[in-house]
Amino acid sequence: MRLATIDNGTADGALIAVSRDARRCLHAGATMQQAIEHWEQVEPRLRALAARLEEGEGEALDHQRLLAPLPRAWQWLDGSVFPQHGVLMQQAFNLPPIETDRPLMYQGLSDRFLPGHADVPLPSEADGIDFEGEYGVITDAVPMGTTPDDAMAHIRLVILINDWSLRAIAPIEMKTGFGWVQAKPACAAAPFALTPDELGEAWKDGRVHLPMQVALNGQWFGHPQGGEMAFGFHELVAHAARSRDLVAGTIIGSGTVSNADYVRAGSACISERRAIEMIDSGAPQTPFMRFGDRVRLEAEGGMFGAVDQRVVGAFA
Amino acid sequence: MRLATIDNGTADGALIAVSRDARRCLHAGATMQQAIEHWEQVEPRLRALAARLEEGEGEALDHQRLLAPLPRAWQWLDGSVFPQHGVLMQQAFNLPPIETDRPLMYQGLSDRFLPGHADVPLPSEADGIDFEGEYGVITDAVPMGTTPDDAMAHIRLVILINDWSLRAIAPIEMKTGFGWVQAKPACAAAPFALTPDELGEAWKDGRVHLPMQVALNGQWFGHPQGGEMAFGFHELVAHAARSRDLVAGTIIGSGTVSNADYVRAGSACISERRAIEMIDSGAPQTPFMRFGDRVRLEAEGGMFGAVDQRVVGAFA
Repeated sequence: MRLATIDNGTADGALIAVSRDARRCLHAGATMQQAIEHWEQVEPRLRALAARLEEGEGEALDHQRLLAPLPRAWQWLDGSVFPQHGVLMQQAFNLPPIETDRPLMYQGLSDRFLPGHADVPLPSEADGIDFEGEYGVITDAVPMGTTPDDAMAHIRLVILINDWSLRAIAPIEMKTGFGWVQAKPACAAAPFALTPDELGEAWKDGRVHLPMQVALNGQWFGHPQGGEMAFGFHELVAHAARSRDLVAGTIIGSGTVSNADYVRAGSACISERRAIEMIDSGAPQTPFMRFGDRVRLEAEGGMFGAVDQRVVGAFA
Repeated sequence: MRLATIDNGTADGALIAVSRDARRCLHAGATMQQAIEHWEQVEPRLRALAARLEEGEGEALDHQRLLAPLPRAWQWLDGSVFPQHGVLMQQAFNLPPIETDRPLMYQGLSDRFLPGHADVPLPSEADGIDFEGEYGVITDAVPMGTTPDDAMAHIRLVILINDWSLRAIAPIEMKTGFGWVQAKPACAAAPFALTPDELGEAWKDGRVHLPMQVALNGQWFGHPQGGEMAFGFHELVAHAARSRDLVAGTIIGSGTVSNADYVRAGSACISERRAIEMIDSGAPQTPFMRFGDRVRLEAEGGMFGAVDQRVVGAFA
């Protein structure tokens, strides 16, 4: 089942079910947040809408009106669990390895997730503007102390995220140990949220086994696949719920997708490509984004729809 | 003006104006979140309620039904800007000074703020259970790039916060650079939110110049005063808004209150007292909290009401 949120002039938008060909939709008469809070009761109704869509019902879907699946969330916790990304960053910047056997995770800005097609207003090109292509999940309410095995059933939806990052600020904030505030402005998300079963064979071990196709200004940038997470999403959920109840509608991210075979697969963020360039030739060559630059992120097959957005000057 | 939120069975509760003697209230017919989103329009109505309360109107206030002023917030950003606290922690744990000329700040769990009198369920006494007495502010919508001077007017309410912290986990997470997830479960807040003018002379330079009276299991623990912030709240707001619009209802904290004259003033968290003990005698003596232990936090004069809560086992 494929869900989305369509702009109706409110902050939360309106929940719709979307046909597999992404051409038609039916209104659910609720918001995504309401659905995720009452998932057990709401899911059968949503699946009935999805079945009617596959029988040809529904109105034409206006893609320009699609918001992020959850346009604002009470909680956004972003992991960083692709080991190859960490290895490359450490090697390029001559950093000591991060000493932990736990998944890396930070709490991020959750009060808005930008639509996948929306311009991204940022204050300065000097901040080192970068994207990060990630997969993510939306959970229902998860009680404190939930085990990884039990956490799997709390993963209700899978999404595709662009975690906007400001690389000139990130290391300064990271050095404090306090995580990121200025370096992590609002993320964007591709329009369609999928139930795990909708992913078929691509959903396995709590991971999305699909290449993330990344293009910068229309040029291939990478197609790393999502299966190489050191921890599955169920393990990230359990990690997050160690000392807190997770509110329904918590979004948990994988961190930028990255592969051991990065030479062939490319990268899902500029920072990683620059690290590879530094390792290979001693200096980065790919610049960070300028105002007007555009990034496109899409899972192979296009099931999540696309993030396809342009960076613009906030004060231009 | 003194505001609070009273339990009405919903997640957001109901906004009330509270008399200066904290005995009576009048319902505002809104939630705190709604008020902060439309502050300019709502404030005159709220001030009219406050005036009627001082003329003797209102119903009896049931303190047991008071929630946190904002029972859930879209954003919680906590500073750590009392220099003496940093100095003591570095000295005790032989840490290098944190190299930054910016305010320290992390993004924390915001989907719930516990009532000031509520039990605090935590998973394990082995986690090093600690409180942190802080002051905080609630802002209306703050545009990206707002200056510290302009930020002052966006500070609509001042509150008192207990930032629950798990000290056995905190340094492990801090070392990753990603900030805290497991080490920072939900905060609590004292019941009354005050407009800055209500603080009178105690609100100056974006700081709360009031001692925070701290008691652990009924014993004096400290009374450090809130004026020694290296950055005022207006500067913290501007720092937070450097690369993002702040959503209306953003809560920003000072970090644990701490004074240069800590020998006389005591501390607002156990961790700092243990650091002082380590510096003085080579070893900490004060244990972290056990299930059943109780902490009380109150500003001198009691204007915010009190945090007075007990730690309990989440799985007991």
